[in-house]
Amino acid sequence: MKFAFLLYEGMTALDLIGPHEILSRLPGVTAMRVARQAGPVHTDSGISLIADAGFADVMHADILLVPGAGDATAMQDDPATLDWIRRIDATTRWTTSVCTGSLILGAAGLLRGRRATSHWAALDRLAAFGATPTSARMVEDGKVITSAGVAAGLDMALAFAARIAGERVAHGLQLGIEYDPDPPFDSGHPDKADPALVARLRALMTAAFVAAPIPHERSPGQDAAAPETLRHPQP
Amino acid sequence: MKFAFLLYEGMTALDLIGPHEILSRLPGVTAMRVARQAGPVHTDSGISLIADAGFADVMHADILLVPGAGDATAMQDDPATLDWIRRIDATTRWTTSVCTGSLILGAAGLLRGRRATSHWAALDRLAAFGATPTSARMVEDGKVITSAGVAAGLDMALAFAARIAGERVAHGLQLGIEYDPDPPFDSGHPDKADPALVARLRALMTAAFVAAPIPHERSPGQDAAAPETLRHPQP
Repeated sequence: MKFAFLLYEGMTALDLIGPHEILSRLPGVTAMRVARQAGPVHTDSGISLIADAGFADVMHADILLVPGAGDATAMQDDPATLDWIRRIDATTRWTTSVCTGSLILGAAGLLRGRRATSHWAALDRLAAFGATPTSARMVEDGKVITSAGVAAGLDMALAFAARIAGERVAHGLQLGIEYDPDPPFDSGHPDKADPALVARLRALMTAAFVAAPIPHERSPGQDAAAPETLRHPQP
Repeated sequence: MKFAFLLYEGMTALDLIGPHEILSRLPGVTAMRVARQAGPVHTDSGISLIADAGFADVMHADILLVPGAGDATAMQDDPATLDWIRRIDATTRWTTSVCTGSLILGAAGLLRGRRATSHWAALDRLAAFGATPTSARMVEDGKVITSAGVAAGLDMALAFAARIAGERVAHGLQLGIEYDPDPPFDSGHPDKADPALVARLRALMTAAFVAAPIPHERSPGQDAAAPETLRHPQP
């Protein structure tokens, strides 16, 4: 079973590494880390990850995972990436996202008429892509599974692991990574955190969204030859 | 404030990326990702991370974080790394570890007479380094803070963020990464998982430990010119 994990400049590392730590260990899984080109990809916390394949190398996947980004990069107009996502989605059994990765699925036209979730501060924006914003840790609609912000990817990955390999395997993976969460505070959701803090964070994130326009949807194939627009690694 | 995150071949990516996603975003923090040499480092789930500095480039840090490894690599005899850890520890305000990273701190001689935790399946081995194995999600003893397996690094990082930058900032970071955990199963701790599963995982992990002998402790400085023993990236 082939898992394609999308990497792109400005992504949030934990969106990918959390699920990858679980899903790449499933029996029979081949994990592919795919970016526009093979090589280093900068994430939004400063650390770089390495993609071992480029878009041209991967034409098929059973499962696709699209991570989000903390700044507006995820919403940049990036036809080459959107086109690759559509091409791979046409071959997947499941197409998944973590955090604002769902906005990228939306921009690729894959959420039309579907319920979907995202980072809480970005949830409303899903409607612009014809999706029904649904506030939940994980939302499944047909073959598309979206999860909420960053850390929600761990919960999604465990649920997904059980579906693919059975609950026993999922329990073993949870025990293996000692995922027995005990955060020292209870501020992980806008319903629980101080409203002033929620408002401030929402404003900051909305500013980032507004700085980058929502990519307009395109028809499949239309953008294959479009110029690259993503930020590239600085030497 | 300078944070040094140690990277090494065979490490577990999530041990580092979880805390890094939180701690690197603290105001006034400079995060350094340091390995024997700058460049790619393979992790035990297959993805590679990039170290942007080598040991020779970093002589001081306010905080050091040492991640663990799922296989025996963490316990390999690696004098150059142990020596660098001791050198940096001599300059830190806090020295921290995630998962079996505490075994590396132990091998460096930094846990003698201290209480410490580790991945549940490795906890007993801390005694070999003169530490008192302490089953807890996070253990603080003097300036050394150790955390339990993999995902415990997130909880430690949040507690640590509050200490450094105040609870308000920590709440904001928790909300930002939507760390409102809701795992679909409750198998993340040996006290909660099926005992047969615990026994099987413990046997697997113990086999990995036995395959690699515990590095004997050395005096600071003794190993500066020792040959490298870690596995290096395959081309």
